[in-house]
Amino acid sequence: MTVKAYGTYAADKPLEPLAITRRAPGPRDVQIEIAYCGICHSDLHQARAEWAGTQWPCVPGHEIVGRVSAVGGSVSGFREGDLVGIGCIVDSCRSCFECDDGLENYCDHMIGTYNFPTPDAPGHTLGGYSQRIVVHERYVLRIAHPEEQLASVAPLLCAGITTYSPLRHWRAGPGKKVGIVGIGGLGHMGIKLAHAMGAHVVAFTTSESKREDARTLGADEVAVSRNEEEMAAHTQSFDLIVNTVAAPHDLDAFTALLKRDGTMTLVGAPASPHPSPNVMNLITKRRSIAGSMIGGIPETQEMLDFCAKHGIVADIEMIKADGINEAYERMLKGDVKYRFVIDNASLAAG
Amino acid sequence: MTVKAYGTYAADKPLEPLAITRRAPGPRDVQIEIAYCGICHSDLHQARAEWAGTQWPCVPGHEIVGRVSAVGGSVSGFREGDLVGIGCIVDSCRSCFECDDGLENYCDHMIGTYNFPTPDAPGHTLGGYSQRIVVHERYVLRIAHPEEQLASVAPLLCAGITTYSPLRHWRAGPGKKVGIVGIGGLGHMGIKLAHAMGAHVVAFTTSESKREDARTLGADEVAVSRNEEEMAAHTQSFDLIVNTVAAPHDLDAFTALLKRDGTMTLVGAPASPHPSPNVMNLITKRRSIAGSMIGGIPETQEMLDFCAKHGIVADIEMIKADGINEAYERMLKGDVKYRFVIDNASLAAG
Repeated sequence: MTVKAYGTYAADKPLEPLAITRRAPGPRDVQIEIAYCGICHSDLHQARAEWAGTQWPCVPGHEIVGRVSAVGGSVSGFREGDLVGIGCIVDSCRSCFECDDGLENYCDHMIGTYNFPTPDAPGHTLGGYSQRIVVHERYVLRIAHPEEQLASVAPLLCAGITTYSPLRHWRAGPGKKVGIVGIGGLGHMGIKLAHAMGAHVVAFTTSESKREDARTLGADEVAVSRNEEEMAAHTQSFDLIVNTVAAPHDLDAFTALLKRDGTMTLVGAPASPHPSPNVMNLITKRRSIAGSMIGGIPETQEMLDFCAKHGIVADIEMIKADGINEAYERMLKGDVKYRFVIDNASLAAG
Repeated sequence: MTVKAYGTYAADKPLEPLAITRRAPGPRDVQIEIAYCGICHSDLHQARAEWAGTQWPCVPGHEIVGRVSAVGGSVSGFREGDLVGIGCIVDSCRSCFECDDGLENYCDHMIGTYNFPTPDAPGHTLGGYSQRIVVHERYVLRIAHPEEQLASVAPLLCAGITTYSPLRHWRAGPGKKVGIVGIGGLGHMGIKLAHAMGAHVVAFTTSESKREDARTLGADEVAVSRNEEEMAAHTQSFDLIVNTVAAPHDLDAFTALLKRDGTMTLVGAPASPHPSPNVMNLITKRRSIAGSMIGGIPETQEMLDFCAKHGIVADIEMIKADGINEAYERMLKGDVKYRFVIDNASLAAG
């Protein structure tokens, strides 16, 4: 089945309308008509081949929400008409101890939603900048939010779970002081989620202009990271800092703010290395620098249910498919509050 | 009271015999005649002012064992004749939450055994390269080993606790695979301790010549870290790696060997930074790089008791006080198996 999509055949070309094919649903597949797809910074990295190994054509998109239009004969958990989501993962080995633990995100054979090998044409996965997607039911998430919030739910599938997972793993909650570094697509979700979990939340930003926004998102306090006095006031006070900033920066300024046994978790990988972190900052208070990558499927479902229960969605700016290239340019300048979401109905015009 | 010691008045001068004073025991003090003192690499860094802030004269030494010769009137836990040890800590604030948790090593006001401020003359602490030391009973450790092992117990007070504490904190034990990087003073203790805890122990060394030694110390396997094939065989298999190497080196070679959720703990701080660790190595398996510094007093007692129970001591080479300078030179070349220990009786000749 041919469907319309938006993608590119070269790193230096803008995204444009394409036709792609989707397989007919197999016995355990769920076929989804995509309603909305969030735009993640990863999409731009991959489309512009800033990361190694981009396959052409590249159709990005892994913050997908829509409605089930068909299911395979062995699917029992979903039926036509269900509101569902697809995040960053569309397959994995399903037999390793990571998959057994519901941590498909750490499976060595995880198949990402775009740019990963697949038996389907054209040989690599094509993402959510398209009208339809067909995915094994294991990787399909149920959405309990009201339908009118659907577009704002899309970013939960990557930005949401990427911050939710480390917050849960390192036990953000009442009595804990949690920092969120960077107030962008990921960071704005991190603030909302940590706040809803009951933690005392401090947002870190380089930009004075985001101070009030961070408060509105749920931060109890805001520190402008260039302000040494504001930073010093938080010395040795954090249980956990989730650092969403992928650009190389001084990690020591944040590790110094951790309590004994505190952890700073990085959820973004810089294209060039951070300055090497000061080992004494770690040793003298038994601190850790960790990493975390999206989340497993059961935890993604838990996150969606948590968000539905607490009325949490992303703050978005809706665009049409022909606005993707302009959205990429604005995203590079940080000019979005806080996530672009494509109205996939607009693909029909392409 | 004046006692004999070995120390130096300048970074570029060898250590030489000195006379220092020790206070009369206060109500809660324990006065110890030092029998043996281990030589830690820190001693050399401090004596040669390779670390900031060396105070003169510098009398190093924080691996101290000996016999109680007097106690203050309020001391109930020790009496004359007891075999005791003093490690890296001789005082702390005793009122912060670190001290309350028995983690005096993470107290912001920890007083190290040498080169830290004290009301005693000459205004900074003087270490175990001396005949006697007087310490508040809180920081005095009981030694249950047979007296004939006393010299070999000395290095447990720094090298032992520095590896024991992270092994315990990150739960080395049966069913766990634990790596020890570097087979020196710290590493040789790490191998012995992890083995006694019941972990599967892999020793990492840059030197082919240490392969058999590591086995003898208790390693189940040995990997020469320059051998890519040997390293690759351990990919994604470690729960914990305790890295004792303070020289700047490639941390990524070791983080790649950690399982999902594995931790590499650094117990040495390099004088110049390690190459910046690869963040993707952390993110893709939720791994951590942590630090750990010696251990608290209750845990140091636990470690000494554990070692006595399991018959664990350090492998040492005994020297006289006038051999300290030569020992420093040999230590710089890694020419010691695995710790020099000073026979403090030899100070009487100085």
